[in-house]
Amino acid sequence: MAKLLVIGAVAAGTSAAAKARRVDPQLEIKVFAEGEHISYGACGLPYFIGGVIGSKEKLLHRSIESFAQQGIMVQTLCRATAIDLQQREVVFQDLVGQRRFQESYDQLVIATGGRPVVLDWPGLDWPGIFTLRTVNDGVAIRAYLQQQQPQQALIIGAGYIGLEMAENLTDLGIPVTLVERGSQIAPNMDADMAAIIQQHLEGHGIKVLLDQEIVGFVGGARVEAALTARGTIPADFVLVAIGVRPNTDLAAAAGIRLGVSNAIQVNLRMETNVPGVYAAGDCAATTSLVTGEEVYVPMGTTANKQGRVAGENAAGGEAVFKGVLGTGIARVHDLEISRTGLTEQECNRKGIPAVSHQVQCRTAALPGLAGDVWVKMSAAANSGRILGAQIVGRSGSGKRIDAIAAAITMGATLKDMYDFDMAYSPPFSPVWDPVLLCLNQFK
Amino acid sequence: MAKLLVIGAVAAGTSAAAKARRVDPQLEIKVFAEGEHISYGACGLPYFIGGVIGSKEKLLHRSIESFAQQGIMVQTLCRATAIDLQQREVVFQDLVGQRRFQESYDQLVIATGGRPVVLDWPGLDWPGIFTLRTVNDGVAIRAYLQQQQPQQALIIGAGYIGLEMAENLTDLGIPVTLVERGSQIAPNMDADMAAIIQQHLEGHGIKVLLDQEIVGFVGGARVEAALTARGTIPADFVLVAIGVRPNTDLAAAAGIRLGVSNAIQVNLRMETNVPGVYAAGDCAATTSLVTGEEVYVPMGTTANKQGRVAGENAAGGEAVFKGVLGTGIARVHDLEISRTGLTEQECNRKGIPAVSHQVQCRTAALPGLAGDVWVKMSAAANSGRILGAQIVGRSGSGKRIDAIAAAITMGATLKDMYDFDMAYSPPFSPVWDPVLLCLNQFK
Repeated sequence: MAKLLVIGAVAAGTSAAAKARRVDPQLEIKVFAEGEHISYGACGLPYFIGGVIGSKEKLLHRSIESFAQQGIMVQTLCRATAIDLQQREVVFQDLVGQRRFQESYDQLVIATGGRPVVLDWPGLDWPGIFTLRTVNDGVAIRAYLQQQQPQQALIIGAGYIGLEMAENLTDLGIPVTLVERGSQIAPNMDADMAAIIQQHLEGHGIKVLLDQEIVGFVGGARVEAALTARGTIPADFVLVAIGVRPNTDLAAAAGIRLGVSNAIQVNLRMETNVPGVYAAGDCAATTSLVTGEEVYVPMGTTANKQGRVAGENAAGGEAVFKGVLGTGIARVHDLEISRTGLTEQECNRKGIPAVSHQVQCRTAALPGLAGDVWVKMSAAANSGRILGAQIVGRSGSGKRIDAIAAAITMGATLKDMYDFDMAYSPPFSPVWDPVLLCLNQFK
Repeated sequence: MAKLLVIGAVAAGTSAAAKARRVDPQLEIKVFAEGEHISYGACGLPYFIGGVIGSKEKLLHRSIESFAQQGIMVQTLCRATAIDLQQREVVFQDLVGQRRFQESYDQLVIATGGRPVVLDWPGLDWPGIFTLRTVNDGVAIRAYLQQQQPQQALIIGAGYIGLEMAENLTDLGIPVTLVERGSQIAPNMDADMAAIIQQHLEGHGIKVLLDQEIVGFVGGARVEAALTARGTIPADFVLVAIGVRPNTDLAAAAGIRLGVSNAIQVNLRMETNVPGVYAAGDCAATTSLVTGEEVYVPMGTTANKQGRVAGENAAGGEAVFKGVLGTGIARVHDLEISRTGLTEQECNRKGIPAVSHQVQCRTAALPGLAGDVWVKMSAAANSGRILGAQIVGRSGSGKRIDAIAAAITMGATLKDMYDFDMAYSPPFSPVWDPVLLCLNQFK
């Protein structure tokens, strides 16, 4: 009987195992996870901390028992310490019993995920400084907030997690300062869109500091302030949310090829350079559907999709994952923020000649439901091919990005989409949908 | 100086005139309208009646004066009674002064709109029986509701207007009965989707009667009941909302070619069979982007787009309007209903071999924001080309149809869209968006 081994049991690992089981009911499937929790929705963690999601159990999708019923063995608290590609074996360290053991495999799925980027800051180990990645991170932050009742929160990094945490912390009544090393928040949006978001945050009492490099922390019983070249930022709670890097030391040590951002390089079948060894989720690279380049865009949705494809192929099926647009969405205090494809700034950085337009209009025609929305789109200067879009606006704005993501997936030009048949009635849209209005700007 | 004459001044006519002016600042442009109001959002009328839109002025987009400032003369209350294609002249009847006059043209845009379908029912002229099409219809209904305080409303026809009026009337505290001749409400949805809507309506106290043909009305000082083959349906307010037919007697009498549903036949440039004569809006036919057939789908958004194209071409430009998907959306008591392309039933009626799947899931991952949503998609059995979709669900459901509309516009197959990069975070979607979940059903 063939044996599939999966390293990692959050989104990609569990998706791979479940899909492999559906493809091949006979396959032996074993999943090992370093962490305590499996199959959880990490994207819900800011809302768990904010109390919107009441208990950690609500973050957990599937239990070890439910996998067992499918004939999938899941073991937690086991760290993979080495992969022997010749012997087709993985060495594990049992983190509880300290036992070392080997597991053989016929097919291997590496889903070791990512970890938060932190810099080598002096004072990083003061109590009260956190990153947010796992359920236990969320539990620890929630406990700290309840027990220590911090008076001033500092969030380092204003990407999706930073923005969502800013909302949840202010909703808990904790004053928030958001600090960015660069000259704008929301680094994967254009500066003009980011400025709208910043104004909104400031309107909700969130202090935004730009162009400030953190150099360390000072504390006593716990963290008391962050240090920058310009001075100190008082804070008795600090969240570091400056990005994610792939957990690929294990794969690299085994000789599996890494690619962009040190993520594991895979083909469209999610197979690494080693036949029979697949990688999926936040440890793996993928392809930009806009540029064709290898990119590292760790996202929960992508992890699920990649895991499913890796599992299907590892079980003898034939599936492909073509790549991503870098679509993302976040909400912060009734402002919805979304993007897909390339921003104008990204086009410029890549030297892609592009034209961009931004429109401001209303989300709906009906009084009481209508709010401001800004849509910005970018297209190739020569071909008119749509390259990307960004949306910032009130309720009902953000998911409008999906229509543009669909168009980009199909290689649509502005002309193709110029007056496509979007849904309209007064509660949902002005008669010219904001997306159409933006498309019309290019004519 | 060339002269553009436009007959009609709601959506298509005013769009045509405004666009023609932008293309050619020199063109003489005259617009004549039979009605009293111009440039209004007819789709807002149910909300005006419900009081959500406070005054009729809020329905009016542009005034005669604002057109005059652009050098566009607009004259209301003038009925076009004949078009002389040889002389390039239109005969008008001034509805106020009863004067008859001719206007010559070089280019003509016919935007005579549509009118509500009514059958030859005995008793149709009882006070209290209405159709809803114009601002004056809305004003008359609102006045009737306020003055007569009806105790029981009957809506004949459960399409978009019928459903929206059902919401607005019940919000005003008036009990509503909705009657349909056919075996389901929402005739442009599949029966399984319509059943979900019906259950929701009934949960909000709206009485739904199916398979009931209205044969007439009885009344005293005003309407008292509608008559069916089975008996009487008591009602002191009746709205007839069984569809729209194109106003094309004028065009037909002049010898301009009509097409499907007696709508004016146009090419992609919105030009009729007579060079220099264009038609746009609810009087004109268009093309189904799914089947390539000529179709009649009167919609405000389409009228705006067609008017713009007709105006551009009439002013010497080169624009095309490729057609529609029949995308539509409505809200009724917190239930959102949308559709695009072909339903399963429409595929069956046309003999198109199709596969369809319906999924039920949640709109979001976050407690408090998550509601039920049903997504149904249909695709060509042979090629996998996506043919249509329908969505019914709670807040945040309806506009998801646009992503599918974009895909259909681009001729996408299920495989093309199988795992496309849709926006996800817990307030907006489960990790598998409902649309992706439905796409996944086809595999």
